[in-house]
Order: sequence, then C-alpha cells, then structure tokens
Amino acid sequence: MKKVKMGMIGGGTGSFIGGVHRMVSAIDGQIELVCGAFSSNPEKSKESGKALMLDADRVYDSFQEMIESEKQLPEAVRMDFVAVVTPNHMHFTPVKMALENGFHVVCDKPIAFNLKEALKIKEIVKVTGLQFALTHNYTAYPMVKQAKGLVDKGTFGKIRKVIVEYSQGWLATKVEDSGQKQASWRVDPSKSGAGGAISDIGTHAENLMEYITGLKISELCADLTTFVEGRLLDDDANILLHFDNGAKGILHTSQICVGEENNLNIRVYGEKASLEWHQQEPNTLQVKYLDKPFETYRTGGSGVTDYSSSVTRIPAGHPEGYLEAFATIYKNFANVLQLLKQEKEVTKADKDYPSVEDGIRGMLFVNKVIESSKAGQKWVKM
Amino acid sequence: MKKVKMGMIGGGTGSFIGGVHRMVSAIDGQIELVCGAFSSNPEKSKESGKALMLDADRVYDSFQEMIESEKQLPEAVRMDFVAVVTPNHMHFTPVKMALENGFHVVCDKPIAFNLKEALKIKEIVKVTGLQFALTHNYTAYPMVKQAKGLVDKGTFGKIRKVIVEYSQGWLATKVEDSGQKQASWRVDPSKSGAGGAISDIGTHAENLMEYITGLKISELCADLTTFVEGRLLDDDANILLHFDNGAKGILHTSQICVGEENNLNIRVYGEKASLEWHQQEPNTLQVKYLDKPFETYRTGGSGVTDYSSSVTRIPAGHPEGYLEAFATIYKNFANVLQLLKQEKEVTKADKDYPSVEDGIRGMLFVNKVIESSKAGQKWVKM
Amino acid sequence: MKKVKMGMIGGGTGSFIGGVHRMVSAIDGQIELVCGAFSSNPEKSKESGKALMLDADRVYDSFQEMIESEKQLPEAVRMDFVAVVTPNHMHFTPVKMALENGFHVVCDKPIAFNLKEALKIKEIVKVTGLQFALTHNYTAYPMVKQAKGLVDKGTFGKIRKVIVEYSQGWLATKVEDSGQKQASWRVDPSKSGAGGAISDIGTHAENLMEYITGLKISELCADLTTFVEGRLLDDDANILLHFDNGAKGILHTSQICVGEENNLNIRVYGEKASLEWHQQEPNTLQVKYLDKPFETYRTGGSGVTDYSSSVTRIPAGHPEGYLEAFATIYKNFANVLQLLKQEKEVTKADKDYPSVEDGIRGMLFVNKVIESSKAGQKWVKM
Amino acid sequence: MKKVKMGMIGGGTGSFIGGVHRMVSAIDGQIELVCGAFSSNPEKSKESGKALMLDADRVYDSFQEMIESEKQLPEAVRMDFVAVVTPNHMHFTPVKMALENGFHVVCDKPIAFNLKEALKIKEIVKVTGLQFALTHNYTAYPMVKQAKGLVDKGTFGKIRKVIVEYSQGWLATKVEDSGQKQASWRVDPSKSGAGGAISDIGTHAENLMEYITGLKISELCADLTTFVEGRLLDDDANILLHFDNGAKGILHTSQICVGEENNLNIRVYGEKASLEWHQQEPNTLQVKYLDKPFETYRTGGSGVTDYSSSVTRIPAGHPEGYLEAFATIYKNFANVLQLLKQEKEVTKADKDYPSVEDGIRGMLFVNKVIESSKAGQKWVKM
Repeated sequence: MKKVKMGMIGGGTGSFIGGVHRMVSAIDGQIELVCGAFSSNPEKSKESGKALMLDADRVYDSFQEMIESEKQLPEAVRMDFVAVVTPNHMHFTPVKMALENGFHVVCDKPIAFNLKEALKIKEIVKVTGLQFALTHNYTAYPMVKQAKGLVDKGTFGKIRKVIVEYSQGWLATKVEDSGQKQASWRVDPSKSGAGGAISDIGTHAENLMEYITGLKISELCADLTTFVEGRLLDDDANILLHFDNGAKGILHTSQICVGEENNLNIRVYGEKASLEWHQQEPNTLQVKYLDKPFETYRTGGSGVTDYSSSVTRIPAGHPEGYLEAFATIYKNFANVLQLLKQEKEVTKADKDYPSVEDGIRGMLFVNKVIESSKAGQKWVKM
Repeated sequence: MKKVKMGMIGGGTGSFIGGVHRMVSAIDGQIELVCGAFSSNPEKSKESGKALMLDADRVYDSFQEMIESEKQLPEAVRMDFVAVVTPNHMHFTPVKMALENGFHVVCDKPIAFNLKEALKIKEIVKVTGLQFALTHNYTAYPMVKQAKGLVDKGTFGKIRKVIVEYSQGWLATKVEDSGQKQASWRVDPSKSGAGGAISDIGTHAENLMEYITGLKISELCADLTTFVEGRLLDDDANILLHFDNGAKGILHTSQICVGEENNLNIRVYGEKASLEWHQQEPNTLQVKYLDKPFETYRTGGSGVTDYSSSVTRIPAGHPEGYLEAFATIYKNFANVLQLLKQEKEVTKADKDYPSVEDGIRGMLFVNKVIESSKAGQKWVKM
Repeated sequence: MKKVKMGMIGGGTGSFIGGVHRMVSAIDGQIELVCGAFSSNPEKSKESGKALMLDADRVYDSFQEMIESEKQLPEAVRMDFVAVVTPNHMHFTPVKMALENGFHVVCDKPIAFNLKEALKIKEIVKVTGLQFALTHNYTAYPMVKQAKGLVDKGTFGKIRKVIVEYSQGWLATKVEDSGQKQASWRVDPSKSGAGGAISDIGTHAENLMEYITGLKISELCADLTTFVEGRLLDDDANILLHFDNGAKGILHTSQICVGEENNLNIRVYGEKASLEWHQQEPNTLQVKYLDKPFETYRTGGSGVTDYSSSVTRIPAGHPEGYLEAFATIYKNFANVLQLLKQEKEVTKADKDYPSVEDGIRGMLFVNKVIESSKAGQKWVKM
Repeated sequence: MKKVKMGMIGGGTGSFIGGVHRMVSAIDGQIELVCGAFSSNPEKSKESGKALMLDADRVYDSFQEMIESEKQLPEAVRMDFVAVVTPNHMHFTPVKMALENGFHVVCDKPIAFNLKEALKIKEIVKVTGLQFALTHNYTAYPMVKQAKGLVDKGTFGKIRKVIVEYSQGWLATKVEDSGQKQASWRVDPSKSGAGGAISDIGTHAENLMEYITGLKISELCADLTTFVEGRLLDDDANILLHFDNGAKGILHTSQICVGEENNLNIRVYGEKASLEWHQQEPNTLQVKYLDKPFETYRTGGSGVTDYSSSVTRIPAGHPEGYLEAFATIYKNFANVLQLLKQEKEVTKADKDYPSVEDGIRGMLFVNKVIESSKAGQKWVKM
C-alpha cells in the first residue's frame, strides 16, 4: 500500500485555509502532497511549491497545466485527487476540470460560486462516478457525532427548538482596506458570491444544525446587515427558522461581533431532553434532562457511542483540536479511495464526509436567506 | 428613625414571589412587614398572617379592608407602603386603591393586566405624587449596573448588535394539569394577560436590554409558539429587533427549553468592544476589545464604578445572589421614603428603581410582539 | 407565635461580619434584632444602634450591661439569644456570660481565642443546657448538603484522596498599615490568636472537608509562611493530610494569592466516583464516575436529596447566595428555640448547625498545624 | 530543500505515544518518516512498518540493525534523526547508539531509566555535538509560552507561591491486570523505573512549573501512595515545595483520581499579579491583578507576545490542540537541523525545545521525591 497522492489548487503562501488543508491531510500519515498549482500567478505558485519542498517539475503555473500534465504521468506517480482551496469564485472551473479528467476532488466550502454551478458539479460527479468531499469540518468533531448519535437514539424526543450561532469579530473594522488577504476576497461579491458572513460562516452553522438534528429547514425569516460602511456584502445575519417537523429555531451569525473569535455553538431542545455544544470547547457535550441530573459527555470519555469514539485519536483530556477534526474528513476520504483501489466495497458508513448534497443545501440556504432579507425580512419557503 | 412599614397584598402561603418579596425586603433591616391581605380567601389570609407572626388584627380579609383600616391608624403605626404581589390580573385594582388612599406602592411586574390599566396607573401616580416601584429585579445586580456604567462611558462605541435570552424549561410538560400553583395562573389568559412566556419572563429580557444599552427597540419581528398541546398562551418566542440607533438584535425566550433553569443572559456588541453577562453567574462581567486582552470585572472587584460598588453588600467572591439584588430595589425605595419623611431632596440618582415608564414599556412590548406574531411574523413599528 | 429576639455583641458600623449576621438573620422573617452592645466604645455602640433603628434604651454601653439589663426584662420583651460577632479574642467572655445568665448563643467562628477557652465553653453549654451555634456558614449551601448526602449513600465508595483549598488575595500587601479595619485585628496575635490565615479561613476549609467526607484528619504536615514583611501571623499555609480511613489529602489556604477572591473549593476522590464543588459557583456539584457520563447536580434541580432541597429557598437558576446559605444556620437555630419554647421534641436533624464540637475541632486543628510547622514541617498526630 | 528524514524506534501498532509522535511530526510538512524499528519483536515491527506504508527494506528487525544499515545509506537517503518512543527502560541504549553513530535524537520523556543513564546521555551529546530533544510537550502551548513571557517581563513581581497539579483517573482500578498495554509497563518497576505516577506525569508538572517561573525547586516534602492493592509503584503523590527565591509551592499528581482526564494545571502567585493555565482549555491564560480588572489572554488573540504568536498555527477560537503543541517541538527541532545542514548559525532562541538538562532535572526530581517519601515525608534538599 502506498499513501494517497494529493495535488493542491490554490492555497499558496499567505493563505489560511491552504495551510490548514495541508496540515490536516498530513496528520494521519495516509496522504502525501505530490504537486500543486498554488496561485494563478505562476511566480507565486513556484515560490509556494519550493517552500513546501515539492519537486520543481510538480509545481505548475496553472491548474489546467497541472491536471493535464499529471494525467500523462504513470498511475503510481500521478496525483490521486485534487484539493481545491481557492476563493469561492474559483471553485467550479478546477473542480469540473479535475473530475472530467479522472481525478477525485476535495473542495473547500462553499461548493461553488452559485447554485447553478453547484448543480452542475452534482451532475458531473454523478456521470464520472468519482469521489467528491466538501470540507464542512465542524461536523467531524467527536462530540458532534455523539450529538447526532443521541438524536438518532431518541434521547431528546421530538425536537422543538434549535438555536445555532456562528459569531466572529475580525471584520468589525474595515480590515479589507489594509490589505488583509483573508478579508479582501471575502467581502468582494465577484469572488465570494452573493453572501458575505452568511455564506462564509453561516453555511457552517446551517450544515451543523441539519447534521445533528436530521431536520430540514422548511422556511426562514432573515435580517441581513452590512455594518461596516462601504462594504458590499452582509457582515451580520439574524434569522428565524421553521423546520419540517414543526420545530422553531434561530440562526445568527456575524463577523462584526468584537471579541468573538470563532464562536460556533448549537443548542437543541426536545420534549425529553436538550443538548449544548460549543466549538471553542469541542470536547464537551452537555445533555440536560427533565427529571435527572445533567450529563456531560467528553471526547474519549464514558458513554460515548462507537460513532463518536471511532474518530477520536487521543485519550480524554488531551483537547482534540480543530485540525484533528478537520483531518477526519481527509482520513475518511482517503480510506474510500484506498477501498476503491483495492476494489473493495464502499459502504455508506465509509463515506462519512460532507457530500455534493450538502454543498447544494448550502447554496440554497444562502439564496433563501438573501431572498427573505431583500423582501423586507419576510418568510420564504425553503 | 423607625423602619419603613410594609403591608402586603397577595403572596400567601405557597406563593413563590410573595416569599421572595418578604425575604428581600427584610435583608437590609430597613423595612418591617406590619400587615397584609395575603389572599382573596379570608381564611387563607389569616393562616398566612399567623405563619408570618403578624398581629392578628393587622391581617385582613381583603385588600380593600386593609387599605381602609390602615388609613385610620395613627401615622406612627400604619403601613407606609403596600407591596402588590398578586397574579397579573389583580395588580391594577389594589395599586389604584392604595395610591388613591395615600399609600406608596411596590408592584411586582408586569405592572398590570394590559396597557390601558398601565396608563391609568401612570396617571394616578402623577396626580397623587406618591412613589411607585416595579420589581424588575434583574437590573439591580452590581454587574448589570457596571455594564450600564461602561456603556455610558462610551467603552463600546456605537452599539451595533444586541442578543438577549431568557430561557426556562419548567413548562416543558403540562405541569399546570398537575395542580402546580405557579403554573396554573401563568398559563391562564384571564389571569396572566395576553402573553405567556413573553410576558412572564420576556419582559425582563426586554427591560434588561434597554436598561443596559439605553437604546429603544424601534421595530421587531416575532415568532411566538405554543409547544405544549392544549395550552392557551405562548410558551416560546423568537424575535428579531431593530433599535432606534440602527442597531440590530435578537430576543428569544422560552419556558419549554428542557434543562434551562433561569438562563437570562445578554451580549452587547459595539464598534470598539463588547460585553457579556449571565444571570446564573451574576458576579462576572466579560468585556472584550478589538485590540487588547479581554477584561473580566467582578462584583466588588477592581475597576468597578461607584455606581456598581454602591449596591454591593459583601466582598468579592461571596456570590451576590438573586435575593440581594432584588433587595436593592426595596432599599433604594425605602431610602426615598425616608428622605421624603424628613423633607429632604430626592434626586434622580436616589430613585434608582424601575418606574411606571418601565412598566408601560413592558406592556407595549408585549402588545407589539403579539401583534407581529399574529400578522404572520411581520415587522411592526414600536 | 412571636419572632425570636436577638441581641448582638460587636458588629458595629464598619464591621463586615456584623452586617452579614444582621442581613442573614433577617431574611427568613423569623428573627428580630431587639438590642445590642455593638462596640467596646459606648459612643460607637450608640451610633450603631441608632443607625439600626433600635430603641435607644436597648442599645448598651457594654455586653455586661446588656446581659444584666435584658435579664431583668419580662420574657416577652427580652432577647432570646445573643449573636457574638466580636474579634476572636473577645468571643469567650461574652459567650460565657450570656450562657451563664440564661441566654442561648450564636457565635462567629472561631469559637474562641484558644483551645482552653473552647473547652470551657463546651462545659458551660453542657451544664446550662442552652443552645449554641457556630457560624461555619459554608456547610449550609444546598450543594454541600447534597455532597454529604451522596457520600452517606456510598456513591463514591471508599474515599482515597481529598483536596481542599481556601485562597484569598486581599492581604497580599500590608493593608493593615493603611488602617483597613478588617485586616488590623486579623493580623494581630493578641486579637486573632495563634493562627493567621490558617485560623481565619483555613478552619472553614477543614470544617467543610470533615463535614462532607465524614472522615477525620489523623495526621498532617504543614508549611506556614508569612510572606508580607513585618506581619506577625501566617498569611499562607500548605498542608499534607492523612485521614483516619487511610485516605490522603492536601489543604492549602492563603490570603496573599493576588486575584483570588474567596476561592474555597473541595474535591473528593473515591474508589468509584469523585466530586467537585466551588464556593464561588455554589449551585453546581460535579460528580464524575468511572464508567458513565459525568453528572451535574444543581441547587433545586433534578436528583437532589431531601436533605439538600430542604434548605433551598428559590427555584433552580436563581443563584443561591452566600447570605442565604448563612441564613440557614440562623433559621435552623431559631427553629430549635421555637420548639423549645413550645416544649416540643428537638431531634438531631433539627440541630443542623455547627456545634461546640466543631469549634473544638477547629481549635485543635490550628494547634496541630502550628505545631507541625514549627517542628520543621513534620508529621504530627491529630 | 528536502524534508527532514525521521527513523522511529518503538511505537508499533497499539502504542499510544508512537502514534502521537508520527501525527505531530507530520503536521507541518517538514518531516518525513523514512524508516523504523517499531518493536523488539521483528514480526511486529514488520507489520507496523507495512501499516505505515514504509518501504519494506527500511523496516528493521531491531534498532541496532536500523542504525547500522541506515549509516551505510547515502546522505540524501538515510535518516537524519531517530525518534525514541520505547518504554522508559529502553530509552538509553538506542539513544546512546544513535548518537554514537552520528544521528540526532528526539526522545520521549523521561530521558532515561535512571539518573546515571541520563548523565551518561548528557556526556555523549556533549562529545558528539549532535542535537537532542526531549518531548516535554506541554511547554509548547502558545499560552504557556505567553505565561513565561509575562514572567520574564516582570508582570507578576517576585513570585511567592506556585501550585501545579497533574491528575488522571485511568489507573483508579487495576487495569494492568486486564492486559491494558499502556498500563502494564507503566506500573512495572523494571520497565518504568523507580517512579510510577510521579515519573510518568509528575515530571511534566515539574517541568512546566520550572519552565514558566524560571525558579528552581530548592527542597521538597513528598507523600507518595499506592492506592491500588498489589501495584508496585506509586499512583498518587502530594508534595510541598520550596523554591530558590523563597517561594513556596505544592505539586500534586495522581492516576487514581476518578473522573480526571488529563488535568494538568498551574497557578503562579506573585507580589503584583497571578496567572492560571489549564491544559484542558489550553487556549486561555488568566491573569489577575491587585488593582485592575482581570485579563484573559487567548491563543492568537490581542496582547500576546511574539514568543507566543510564533507558535500559533491557526486564528483565535480554533482550539489549538494537544497535537499541535506537541508538533512545535518537532518543528523547532527540524528547523535547527536544517540550519545546521546549511551551515547557518543556530541561536539559543532557535533551540526552543526541552534539552538534556531538562531530562536530568526530571530524573533528579523523581529521585528526591522518592527519597523524601521513604524518609517519612521529610524535607530533602534538591
């Protein structure tokens, strides 16, 4: 057995998410970065490749060149999949080309620039039969999987109310004017798409909510705001939700909440019990009951389901980090590729990572949020 | 100097809030309970009076009898003010009668059964020139006063977003059917008024929000729900808010959130800093800045304003409780009465307790919430 | 039934603990302050009595005068018990005189200036048959009673290790030189006794530990330090402990720990489970098991024993404060007095407040700590 | 530039710490695992090598074979350093042989089986001039580096008291009898050395304490216990400490504290301020002052020193995990190797990882602890 070989598109020096993808793909020792087209600027791509200690002839000037060249290499050498970590507007073209040339794809969220592109990707994935993973990394935490497991077991009874929040503060001032690279493309509609904060991080909240509860948002009422003057996209969103089972909810997200770092959290209230989880202390899951003492589940601790313990690398109390959870997506993805190479069966359980469907949900969600907000914060069906 | 003499209307044996009023009025040693009409049932009133060790001839069969009888007593003996702690529908009549017969009034919130009554009380207070206090106790915590003080100092810059929550879980099942006394009148529209959870606890959240920020809600969009089948009033509310300065907000409150005890909390995000306070850990105020380490203010600790330290009874680390904060309203109120007796000047600072205006704000708020919700969760002006 | 009548010795204006005793004795409406000798300075006593709105002829120049004069009053009028809240060196004489003249006693801890006095008090209490309560207030919290209840039920199995801490920071600098009244007598061996921090707050830690576990310290090894130059008594103590059942432990206490407010906390580790409780968040009791999710008990919440819920005044989530817990001692004490007046039976359960035995334990503890420390931190038997 | 090439000794399938070393060495993309002797059992070594997807001819039957064979390979191919992750009694021989054959070494703690071996390693490192790193990983957390930086800046003034704890509960029952591989060698004196819990985790606490404060323990008084019957080594330790500057302290550690996961925490009290850090929430550093609001530093947040921010990979709020901190040691180590290869200067700042000296400190510490305990918990000089 050899390691799975990864090519990267985007993610050059100075990129936050490119570095994260490289770190987390390396952790488990099953994936090897073999090539990359790290920037649309060939010079910058070369520099990045050198810093990453790649062979110079595997660092390409463009993703087109990379895909075409790699395709010519013998199977034992050429990349197995591409990781697409470009800004949102540059997801679709490389994803499409990679798939159409026989390469599996890991793509950073959101899946594409708009819903149309997302649907097209779905089609291509279907036609080619290749693997595609979207990195909604927050659902990979052990305690999120524990939460989902408890919901499935019926611990909470019928769910009545869900509150999910994703607040940050790093866009509270106009940092994009100071040349902050992370900010500049995120606030530019031509690169980020129609949503600002709601797309960048609100989609994570939405994905987390539906992942844990198994509920679907049936309608919503949103209030988007742009607080920082001169910014073109929303930097704040407050949304009322209705779910398909009659439950109610709130989703709020913001990038202007001074002092908030990466405050993603969720609470689910059912008829019999409730749960609470905070991404900033991801190893704790609080469960509260009508009629007995509250319980605390801990990553790697007592009472966790197999589902949760299967993604735990280290003993309880060693704080399982963001990177490790993120890595689980890569791990599961690599495992599927290995199974395919060996012509073994791939079960649904094996494919435990966000899919094209999740990506489409996200696009639709963003569209509906914007639609409701534009309509004067009216209820719109989803 | 003698203690201020209190008469109580309502609050007989088995009442939660009556007992609280008695405890907190006693703490500071400045108020003496001298008489009461503790129930509309004369027998129950007598029993309660006996348990409270009052003179039998100062325990009355009805509040009418109490007000008339006490009025005949010499000034040195008769009660100075009445505390009205009956269910909501029984606030107006005794408050009115007390005021019209020359007695000051402390009234549990909400001020009355509906807006009309509330406005009438305002008028009577104005005409009589008597003192009136409404027990929105949560604004009396030292760290809430510290928060308000920091807002006034400009610590946060222009406020952009406010999130306030008041969640409980004790009505998650139909406890009113099991004869739970606290529940039964709260879910009965003829006693509680038009609002359920939104009136009972949502008004506290609203009052807290406006007290700290100094902002006024300009419009709101509400989603009220009755989750427990057969219940007539709302037991859950999710509300989007717009403030007069352009800020946005969320207020959510519920009494069906299993496992939530008395989870009142608020976050205020400004352009320069933000704050966070939780009633269940009331001695801590978290302040977060754009560009320096986060700060934690503690009741009685370093950096607190005079405004805050003036209501602190015990050194830092001795958890200042709900009762003590509640008592501050009585203390300030009693102090005003003493000043009046001595014909001294009463300043605005002396009258640091919720007023008629606050009561009216609450009624209006409930009305608007219901109006919006009935209209299909539309925006309504406030 | 009339209220129980209290006379106070010490606790004049500017006293911390005198005010606390007055507040907490008032909360439950069963005790009335009727007289006092608030200072050894007659002028100051008068002023304090006036501020407390007492009848001038019930404010005395000395405790001797108070005891003698009150004794002459008719039973319906005279005080029922005295609360002794003077500095440590002034506990013994008034306690003795009160008892010998037929008055019950509540005494602030420590019971006396030294062990000899403490034993003498024990004897007098026995001879007179009067009631005596010592205000080790921390054991009166509902969650401390819950902890004790769980130990008694065998929840933890055999106890192996106990860690108890009581840290403060207010004596980190030489505040006694700036005329801080609380500090000055506490650091003066002629008023405080042989122990500094270890006596002032270490005895609370010791009392809490033995109350919850039911274990007795069998031997200990202590390291006392005086960090602030020129101070005569210890301001810091680190102590290793052995218990009568073979368990080991640590007790550490300090008044020079900058930033610590009133950090009293305890952890008990047994063979099957462990517990953790913090006085600064007194409404939570954490219980952790070998083989199931951790449990959280909350004041007034699910799963609490009758023992715990009987001392809870308000619903869960309303933070039960220091004052309320303190008041429980008075409440239980007053109840015993009432039972005696009515010639009813007083059970052991009724007398749920610290006794003379507890006071003696504390004195012995301090002695042993000092003995060990002086001997070069050797083990000494207890 | 090529990646640094690592060979591993020990750490085969089923090993906890071997897997951790592999994960953390991979994260930053600068180290490549090229060979290994993963077990003293050649069959198990082969299996492990296969699972790790290594070339079969680089998986060796013994570490002796590995060192000799790798030495023959061309420089561009052979390993640059070895990672020694065997049980404690198997550290010395491979470390010695690796160094004597020209290979740098990363060694898991403790450095050796006893002090004599540790001193010998020091000598060999000096003679050979090769690099040696010991993985006291806890000092690599950004907030630990922040703490050290604040101490160096004089934030706390003279340090008076230090409390450090490292508690676990996984050895509360006799798990070694059930074939638990992690437990079995740790409780076997012939493999673990003279110390049980005190060596396995107590040394981390000691290292952390001295790293942050810059103080040296001058003397200590220890109480070791073996709570689980039939176990040969200590599973619990309570220790009083004196430091070279006059400060006092407590170190307690245990592996029988039911419910404790990996509770390593430290508090440092100085004359002007104090700090608190908990490994289970490693991204927060609390600093408390005499005379201003408490401050909270957060990984990647405002106010952190360059020293701290240089080891932060991801933005604030993404919980920096155990693995990432661990990886910093490898990163710094690899960086030094690269500098050496390029014949660049290596500064003291570059060598920011635990050294031979740290390893020797640990051995000495364990010896002294045992000496004190055996002597009846007497003070012994260090």
